[in-house]
Amino acid sequence: MRLSQFHIATVKEVPADAEIVSHRLMLRAGMIRKLAAGIYTWTPLGLRVLRRVERVVREEMDRAGAIEMLMPSIQPKELWEETGRWQKFGGQLLKIRDRKDGEFCYGPTHEEVVTDFARNELKSYRQLPVNFYQIQTKFRDEIRPRFGVMRAREFLMKDAYSFHLTAECMDRTYRVMYDAYARIFTRLGLKFRAVQADTGAIGGNASHEFHVLADSGEDAIAFASGSDYAANVELAEALAPAAPRPAPAAALERVPTPGVRTVEDVSAHFGIPAQRVLKTILVRGREGLVALCLRGDHELNEIKAAKLPELPGESVLAGEAEIVAATGTRPGFIGPVGLPEAIPVIVDRSAAALADFVCGGNADDTHYRGANWERDARVTRVADLRKVVEGDPSPDGRGTLSIARGIEVGHVFQLGQKYAEAMGASVLDEQGKARVMYMGCYGIGVSRIVAAAIEQNHDDAGIVWPEAMAPWRAAICVINPKNDAKVAEAAEGLYRDLLARGVDVALDDRGLRPGAMFADIELIGIPHRVVVSERGVAAGTFEYRRRDESESRALDRAAVLALFEATAAAS
Amino acid sequence: MRLSQFHIATVKEVPADAEIVSHRLMLRAGMIRKLAAGIYTWTPLGLRVLRRVERVVREEMDRAGAIEMLMPSIQPKELWEETGRWQKFGGQLLKIRDRKDGEFCYGPTHEEVVTDFARNELKSYRQLPVNFYQIQTKFRDEIRPRFGVMRAREFLMKDAYSFHLTAECMDRTYRVMYDAYARIFTRLGLKFRAVQADTGAIGGNASHEFHVLADSGEDAIAFASGSDYAANVELAEALAPAAPRPAPAAALERVPTPGVRTVEDVSAHFGIPAQRVLKTILVRGREGLVALCLRGDHELNEIKAAKLPELPGESVLAGEAEIVAATGTRPGFIGPVGLPEAIPVIVDRSAAALADFVCGGNADDTHYRGANWERDARVTRVADLRKVVEGDPSPDGRGTLSIARGIEVGHVFQLGQKYAEAMGASVLDEQGKARVMYMGCYGIGVSRIVAAAIEQNHDDAGIVWPEAMAPWRAAICVINPKNDAKVAEAAEGLYRDLLARGVDVALDDRGLRPGAMFADIELIGIPHRVVVSERGVAAGTFEYRRRDESESRALDRAAVLALFEATAAAS
Repeated sequence: MRLSQFHIATVKEVPADAEIVSHRLMLRAGMIRKLAAGIYTWTPLGLRVLRRVERVVREEMDRAGAIEMLMPSIQPKELWEETGRWQKFGGQLLKIRDRKDGEFCYGPTHEEVVTDFARNELKSYRQLPVNFYQIQTKFRDEIRPRFGVMRAREFLMKDAYSFHLTAECMDRTYRVMYDAYARIFTRLGLKFRAVQADTGAIGGNASHEFHVLADSGEDAIAFASGSDYAANVELAEALAPAAPRPAPAAALERVPTPGVRTVEDVSAHFGIPAQRVLKTILVRGREGLVALCLRGDHELNEIKAAKLPELPGESVLAGEAEIVAATGTRPGFIGPVGLPEAIPVIVDRSAAALADFVCGGNADDTHYRGANWERDARVTRVADLRKVVEGDPSPDGRGTLSIARGIEVGHVFQLGQKYAEAMGASVLDEQGKARVMYMGCYGIGVSRIVAAAIEQNHDDAGIVWPEAMAPWRAAICVINPKNDAKVAEAAEGLYRDLLARGVDVALDDRGLRPGAMFADIELIGIPHRVVVSERGVAAGTFEYRRRDESESRALDRAAVLALFEATAAAS
Repeated sequence: MRLSQFHIATVKEVPADAEIVSHRLMLRAGMIRKLAAGIYTWTPLGLRVLRRVERVVREEMDRAGAIEMLMPSIQPKELWEETGRWQKFGGQLLKIRDRKDGEFCYGPTHEEVVTDFARNELKSYRQLPVNFYQIQTKFRDEIRPRFGVMRAREFLMKDAYSFHLTAECMDRTYRVMYDAYARIFTRLGLKFRAVQADTGAIGGNASHEFHVLADSGEDAIAFASGSDYAANVELAEALAPAAPRPAPAAALERVPTPGVRTVEDVSAHFGIPAQRVLKTILVRGREGLVALCLRGDHELNEIKAAKLPELPGESVLAGEAEIVAATGTRPGFIGPVGLPEAIPVIVDRSAAALADFVCGGNADDTHYRGANWERDARVTRVADLRKVVEGDPSPDGRGTLSIARGIEVGHVFQLGQKYAEAMGASVLDEQGKARVMYMGCYGIGVSRIVAAAIEQNHDDAGIVWPEAMAPWRAAICVINPKNDAKVAEAAEGLYRDLLARGVDVALDDRGLRPGAMFADIELIGIPHRVVVSERGVAAGTFEYRRRDESESRALDRAAVLALFEATAAAS
């Protein structure tokens, strides 16, 4: 591509509402333009990247045996009423009335439409399993669209839906899709993790989210050093310490601690690390307050707490008045020793392994030292209550956990019979009996991947594309070709050579000055840059630089071509 | 592709509302399924065809220097108010309110959005000309959606918009697009014509519609035998006869003709052909009635008549009472001889070349024989008033006209400054002066082409795809492979051989009986069919048949492969 024949429109200033780096860089590079809140035009440059992602997704879906189709964006209300989602989906559903007052929505997802298709098309177990997918524009009327295409209202999605006679078959296709997703993100050159997800709301059997790792990610992910285990930090299990609890060594001692309320205060006051301090949190239970005990250096995981049988399905901290009424003591001095019998004491696994610990004295300005479970304090139940931390053992026993932040770009989900049951989608089995189908669904945010990749791959000069996503793999920058026919000739020659080798190369023949040209090529993130200048041509060399390296090298023609042959073979 | 791994779902019965053959065949072949009125799901089979069309369109647009981008489907009301089309576009515009009560529409076309994009992106004449295109889903809320994807509400369109400093530049790109469209339809293997279109409403300079020729087409097209001239029949010019009008030979004679009113009656009564009879039609003019005179075998073209200065911009026939009041004579007996002076006599070019003709006598039950212009009858004006007919000379002087029916699938249009003016889209010229841009727009109905191709290419057994549009170029039908390992082996071998040669081939391994399998393959229209049977394998041959031929041939392996090498080279 000759850039003089293309539309490159980089800009210096971006609107203040571009809060995250991918949004700013996509605007600055001229990949997207805002049409309305959460609604973006993909410029020619942006579309090249979007299509690269789309192509890899399509190839891997095809390879995994999924069959592409195309469902409409406009969907009739009647189908959504069959599953009850016309109401339940909430405000994100963009509802529409046509000229005949028929009610429709702009599809935010296609479970209803594909299940309707399947119940009409699939009659026999012989047609199963089958996995339909599409790459198609969706709309979700986000209440606060932001972050550019990261959380846009109109977006491009790949969604797949598989149909099965049995749960086992659903599980097999689920694994095939899991593997396909791993190949997709690997081919795109992204650092990612497949993360166990909560299946609570929909009630399926298994679910994984695929996250692109980036410091700016909204979700914290715990992953194992020794396996592919990964889970949202909120969901990762904290194992009990391997070593048994030591026997008590110290005697219980009541210590006055005026004004010493926080773990930090206690730790300093007693001259011990926070992990030897026990903190006690009072929350509202089904019947009165409940005490949750954790090590001073650990944080309560409210999702885990909410699942305790003593709690009403959510974890709500008790207020100061409630605490004083139930214990006669102000917050900061509560502990398990001598706590009123009516309050259950739930102890985190790590806290349960402590001996000779310090805890609140259940009286204002008082603590206990040398406290021990059983001997001094009741244990109603030991449970996993805390958030995992860096260095915790992995729940699968293989290595330790690291914590990273991630951006969700894919989701695989076993839907079970939820939709097929609601919409009466069944097939005849081998015995001629009608059986409700099992379903899986598998989504990828195609347009979101573009933004996530930038969050992961950028520097001060701009985007640093992985090869597979770059708008062009290489750029040839020509310095003052009008002044020197030899320079123009050398650039044209190299351009033709690279094209002939199948390298997707851009010839920057726009006639910009070198500084502006280099800034553009760096900003839009081309992985390989070759500069053709008068001095280089005189020396028989080109100046080559990788986008992710700071140094350039003088290479002759053969060396430049060899470079692309090597990378072509690797990709 | 192994068809056992694909989703083929042909059906026997189609709904009664499938009125045209393409709609019926697309449903029977299982290419589309209706979701709601005018809203269709493209099944895997249908999508394969749609993607073939899309690909050819994309390749030729790229080749013609157009640059692909992707604009949103949801567009804000504010832009449409700038051009006044929020009201003017009418009921086809699907209007939408989002959760914050903002007003939007589902884009039926993108002039507003692209002009907004251009006014922000294009600052200098140096960036011109530029031609942006997209292939994208559109919605028009048709009051009566029908004919399947031929007139659907949600449809796939390629739309392109070019921007220019001058009208001349616009004209050059217009020609480039015209040629690209011709290549697209030629590559798709369709019989088509580029037809001069009426530019009245939008007021641009030039406009052509591209029509796929098919007997079921809604539009009648006149095209020349000796050139690429083609026009909608309503717009094709009827030339004056080449020979001069003969001198009068007969005397004017008044003849009683009781009850002889129609051209057919007159022709029979006088024993002369219809082309020697003059028919006179009275229409409402700006001031009183106007007489339009045509040859008895010609039809009035109301679009041409409406443009006469004597008419008020439309052509409305006078009622019987008006005629009697103005002439004292009942309809059927009106003629130019002795017509009241107040009524202008506009004579069609062909009628003006008549001598010694028969016409109405301006008295009930009376005609004139031997009538002649000038000598007997006034001529206010000679004009082109009639519809062209088969065999007329071509307006460009090259050969004669034929008439065919067509389906509009593409449209190229010079918009001029209409949108750029309304939306303030200008660039700086070489003198640094702001100048409003000129625009062209170029649309192709991608999904409509699929239906139009079927209207043109089908037989009693189903669709007969042109090679470039077929879901697969070839099908291998295997007869009873489970009973005979050699048959299975021969089929697999041929399948691999064809794939290795880059032939897009389907192996029908679904295990159907031969009759059902052949019916499916014919219905879905695969151009080449190779049958692998026990008898054939024993004889070392395959049974080959082209979809558009009635006879099959026994060919050995080498001959089958040679066949596809030949067609590959041709395509």
